[in-house]
Order: sequence, then structure tokens, then C-alpha cells
Amino acid sequence: MLPTIAREGDVVVMIDQRKLPAQEVYVRCKTAPQVARAIKSMVIRGAPAIGVAAAWGIALGMRRSAATGTQKFAAEFQKTCDLIAATRPTAVNLFWAIERMKQSFGTGAQAGESVDQIKDRLDREAQMIHDEDVASCRAMGAFGADVVPEDARILTHCNAGALATAGYGTALGVIRGAVEKGKRVAVFADETRPFLQGARLTAWELMRDGIDTTIITDNMSASLMAQAKVNFVVVGADRIAANGDTANKIGTYGVAVLAREHNIPFYVAAPLSTIDLRTLEGSHIPIEERNAREVTHVGSSQVAPTGAKVWNPAFDVTPHRFIAGIITERGIFRAPYTESLKQAFETETATPR
Amino acid sequence: MLPTIAREGDVVVMIDQRKLPAQEVYVRCKTAPQVARAIKSMVIRGAPAIGVAAAWGIALGMRRSAATGTQKFAAEFQKTCDLIAATRPTAVNLFWAIERMKQSFGTGAQAGESVDQIKDRLDREAQMIHDEDVASCRAMGAFGADVVPEDARILTHCNAGALATAGYGTALGVIRGAVEKGKRVAVFADETRPFLQGARLTAWELMRDGIDTTIITDNMSASLMAQAKVNFVVVGADRIAANGDTANKIGTYGVAVLAREHNIPFYVAAPLSTIDLRTLEGSHIPIEERNAREVTHVGSSQVAPTGAKVWNPAFDVTPHRFIAGIITERGIFRAPYTESLKQAFETETATPR
Repeated sequence: MLPTIAREGDVVVMIDQRKLPAQEVYVRCKTAPQVARAIKSMVIRGAPAIGVAAAWGIALGMRRSAATGTQKFAAEFQKTCDLIAATRPTAVNLFWAIERMKQSFGTGAQAGESVDQIKDRLDREAQMIHDEDVASCRAMGAFGADVVPEDARILTHCNAGALATAGYGTALGVIRGAVEKGKRVAVFADETRPFLQGARLTAWELMRDGIDTTIITDNMSASLMAQAKVNFVVVGADRIAANGDTANKIGTYGVAVLAREHNIPFYVAAPLSTIDLRTLEGSHIPIEERNAREVTHVGSSQVAPTGAKVWNPAFDVTPHRFIAGIITERGIFRAPYTESLKQAFETETATPR
Repeated sequence: MLPTIAREGDVVVMIDQRKLPAQEVYVRCKTAPQVARAIKSMVIRGAPAIGVAAAWGIALGMRRSAATGTQKFAAEFQKTCDLIAATRPTAVNLFWAIERMKQSFGTGAQAGESVDQIKDRLDREAQMIHDEDVASCRAMGAFGADVVPEDARILTHCNAGALATAGYGTALGVIRGAVEKGKRVAVFADETRPFLQGARLTAWELMRDGIDTTIITDNMSASLMAQAKVNFVVVGADRIAANGDTANKIGTYGVAVLAREHNIPFYVAAPLSTIDLRTLEGSHIPIEERNAREVTHVGSSQVAPTGAKVWNPAFDVTPHRFIAGIITERGIFRAPYTESLKQAFETETATPR
């Protein structure tokens, strides 16, 4: 299992995903602001992993609180949640995890628990979010494997792998599931500019697992499809609206259009925590714009003229009509998504946590 | 005028396009093998510029010949042409320019000219190819400007600019033409991985001309179109088949598919020397595959795991059905291309050089 994120005593340890694959460096966060900084600067990224990091950040922050009264403790808790919430706007798992931590806090407070008891409760909740994420990925992998062709040539975009989750991965979980079921699998990884998660992270992960992987630049996927070198596309998601519209790493929408042009099924793999029924459609999803420097520089190399204007949205939205199915830990949901996703949550709510 | 390539005495000088925009370094070629190396290593690139460089390489090589007899001189000429022809397979302008030089040689030889007279003749032919290229670009710019919207938001891919030609540019010539006609123009430049001609060269050229330019990574064009931020696409070409299928920098085909999905006109701008009537359709165009290192490294930064597999085709083919028109120095040709392009050459042949 890849060490994406782990709690070790009073520290949350994350592999620094900005430095992979050249270096395996670990960042040790001792405070909630340090975790917030790690999320914002993309030490850790990927919607589910961001959710897990948010939960650990809150648990860690509250563990260090010197408050003795519950009122002061509650005020600090709110502040910590706000800090973590202000890191990245698009991935809904961040807000989902914060909400889970708030509910946990509320349950403890209502039961009249002491500050120490609530600290323990928050720790347990974070651990549960962490463990559930791995379990979700494995379930997604098992469900998704069924729709992967026997002789699969799979294109994926960005990194929706073990590194984007607490382990195993969403889109890469589906690929791992297919391999475990004995299917023949070759993967093409879009390098995914500007942050290069595909070349740096997806290729690294899959090569470690011995899965046949070929890196292409993002603009090669059309040609790959035209030459029938791909027969399945699977990507992750940062936020799925109630109607199935899916925000994911910039470039995903283009891949979806190209997949449809070439009659290749395009699947999204994501846990239910990525589905946001309160966002009715994709146009309501806030899209983070990041620093121009991510585009103008690669490592120490400047690749654009000084002072060049840049547009750098971190995500795009793929309309639901391009999506063959949404693979979750509860099975694969299909159009019409407004109904199928709503039903998914009705089942979910009925299930005890 | 940008100093893409120039003859200076017995030397051909080229700006080193691998080093732009960080450094303005000039490469001085004294021999035909040096010119061949410059083409192969992409000191100079862009189909029309490659044609001009090929012509100068041959003229330069023969100028340095010590042969006194025409027979020895003819053998050296053939060897030089073969050397230049073996540099890059896709851009047909290379072979077109070599053919022009061969015809010039043949005319001189048939007329019983001396070695020195043929050397002069080859020089004049190279200069003519050079000058015609600039003239073609200006004509293309004037014709193309007419189809550019009054309030244009233009997406272009790779660099089909002054740097890709002897000056002014093909696709960027159309943009320059529109600006000269007083149209309001904003340009989005795909960065164009792996060689980054868009970020490094197109942005640099257009910023020097004071044209509003924004760099995006290749995978952002779909999102840009979905947001109606683009209303015109124009690209260059490396080889246009008789039926209009167009080989151009990798990623062009994807842009064409996306443009059609969003009802945005997609134009190709290229001189007649890029149209190869002997290639009946796109599938017959040889596509160069380049070194993996172009993808795995950017400058000194390694961006992929050591030993990662890479697919690196330098070009793709856009089927003619995606192309709204082919802008040439003789006007804009439209579907059905098999007829319109054939007619273009009938006019061309009738015109004295």
C-alpha cells in the first residue's frame, strides 16, 4: 500500500506529491495550519485524499488544543474547520469530511462529553473516514472491473490512484480491480499538464504495481483514439453534481468529447462522498484557478516568455451526457443520473455508519 | 521581421528555436550536414521554414564543393539532397524544396552551364524559395483575414508563425493580416507539448507584435471552447493530402474535434508547397516518432519515472471533414477538397514562376 497519508502519534505524515517521482520525501504536519498548507500547496491532492487529510488536520488541530472548557474548545474547532475549508474550492470531499467531523463533534457535545472525550471521538472519526476511503476504493475497483474489456487498453487522465485517496485509488482502483480479475490491461496515462500528475504520479504508481503503462502528452489522446489504441476511459472526479455533471482535473472534458467521437466508453470512478446533491448541475461548481507559474515554469525551466498572460483553471466540467457510468462503492450508476444518484444516497442513508 | 533564417555570405544563420524565449542564440551553419543537423534537432522547425532551410542547405553545400567537372558535381549534389531529405519525414515542404533545387540543377545542366554557373543558379533558386515563402505568407494573411471574425478570439496550436516560415507566418500570418485590417484580435496559444512551441515561440512572436496573447496548456482548449471564449481556430500544416486530410503538430486533430463539437470554424493555413497531391489521403502520410526524452524531461527537470514507456508521435492527421477551409497564397479552398486542391495546382502550374 502506498503511504499517501498516515497518522503517526501526534503527527500526520504525507508523501510530498510535488516531488515524486524524482524524490520520495515525507512531510510531517504537526498542526492544522500545516495540514491546510499541505493541501493548498498540493503536497497532497486528489479529492478523496484531500477529504482524509482534512479530517486528520482537524483531529490533529483539536488534539493540540489547550482549551479546558467545551465552549472555548468549540470556538477553536470552528476556526480550525474554517481554516481547512479555505484551502481548495472544487473538491467537495473536503467539505464533506469537514461536515462529518462537525457532526461527530456535535454528537459528542450533545452527549455532554469532556474535551478529552471529544478529542478521542474526532480521532476515531478521522480514522473511520480514512479506513472507509480505502474500503470504498476496493469496492469501486470490484464493481468497475466488470465493465473493463477483457483485453483492455485504458486511457486515464491525471492521478485518481492510491496517491489521490487513502489507498488503492478510484480510477486506478478500477484498473487494479480489472488486473486482479485476470483481465489483460495496458494503460495510457495522459501526462496532465500543468502539474503533471499523470506522468509523475500515475505512471509511478502503476509501474510499481507492474502494470503496463505508457505516458503520452495530453494532446496525443485524440490520435491514440483515432488509431484504435484505446477501448476504455476511466477518470476520477473532484465533484459530481446531482445531474451527473462531473468536475475533474482540467482536460477531462476534452478527453470525454474525444472518447464519444471515437465511440469509446468514458467512465467516472468516485466515492459517494464526491457526489454533491446540493450542487444541481456542473455550472454551479466553483472552479479553482491556480498560479500562472504552474504553466510558465517546469521545475527550474521557464517555458514561456516573461510576462506572458496565462489562463490556469485547475478543473473542468464534463456534462453528464458524455459519461457512460459513474462507478461508486455502491455500484455503477447510469443515466438518468438525477434519479440514479438520488437513489444511491437513499440507500446510503439507510445504511448505518 | 523575425530573423528565422538568413543567408549571410557563405553561412546560413538561424535563430535557435530550442532556446527561445529564454535566450536569443544564433546557429551559423557552414555546411550542408550542419544544416541537416539543425533541421533534425529542431533548431529550425515548421514546414515552410524547413523547406527554406533545405534549399539553403543544398545551395550552401554545393557552393563549398571542390568539384570541377559537372559529373562529380552532380554526384555530390545528389548526395547532398539525400542527406537533407533524411532529416524529417512528415513535412512535405522539405521534399518540395529539394525537388525545386533538383529541377533548377537539371535546367542548368541541360543548358550546359559550368559548375560555377550552376552554383549561382542554386543560390538564386534558394533565395527565390525564401522570398516566395514570405510573399506566400503575406498573401495567406490577406486572404485569411477576411474569414476572421471582427471581434476575434482565436485559438492556435503549435507555432505556425514567422518562426515556422521565412517570415510573417501561415496561421499567425492570418492573425497578423486580421490585425492589419483593423480587426480586434485576442489569441489563445496552446502551449503544445512536448516541445512547447506554443508557449515558447507563438507567445513570444505575438507579444513582440503587441498582439493580446494568453497561453493555455493543451488540455484547457476544451474548457475554453465550452465557455465560448474562442470563436475561430487557425493552425498550420506539415502536409496536406489530395483529399484535404492535414498532418500538423500532434494535438491538432483533438483541437479540430473539439472545435466542431462547439461549432467553431477550424481553418488550416499553408502554402501550396505543403499540399501533396501525390499523397491521396491522410493515412498515407508518414508520421515521425521522436525521442521519449522530449516527454520525460523539460529542460533539466525529469517529469516521469525513470524507465517509463512513452509514445511520442510528432504529428497527427485531421480528416478533411473537420476543416472549414484551407487558406493558401491563392485563396481559400473549401470542400470537396479533392477537386478544389487539384484546381489550385492547375492555376499554379499555369502561372510563371
